[in-house]
Amino acid sequence: MKARVTVTLKNGVLDPQGKAIEGALGALGFGGVGGVRQGKVFDIELEGADKEKARADLEAMCEKLLANTVIENYAIELS
Amino acid sequence: MKARVTVTLKNGVLDPQGKAIEGALGALGFGGVGGVRQGKVFDIELEGADKEKARADLEAMCEKLLANTVIENYAIELS
Repeated sequence: MKARVTVTLKNGVLDPQGKAIEGALGALGFGGVGGVRQGKVFDIELEGADKEKARADLEAMCEKLLANTVIENYAIELS
Repeated sequence: MKARVTVTLKNGVLDPQGKAIEGALGALGFGGVGGVRQGKVFDIELEGADKEKARADLEAMCEKLLANTVIENYAIELS
């Protein structure tokens, strides 16, 4: 089973990397960019076909390793 | 308008970061992980309401800055 975990910074958390990208886009001539926030995506291949178990495992992985839940949110998509 | 750009490594490109995460998940006791690939996600706030123009701009941003198209694919979602 394939899963995609998307980890993004919570609102209010400063994102200097996103700000740098925003500045670079402006310098390249792209106007009208109101803001950029950068996050991470993990494409995870899981064995087994039990979606409930997979989702529970993925939540545990996010809490323990993939996301820093103090400053980041995570979203899980199973396909 | 909000857009999400997801940049992932092409198939066949080695991903040592993903491999390290896979190893760490195994060490934490998560079995059944067949593979991990890490990518990047950009949440971009764009001014204007023209979806066609926004998509064209985002493609240009990906080609010029956000993705290294030699080794990475990108996907654009507009909402």
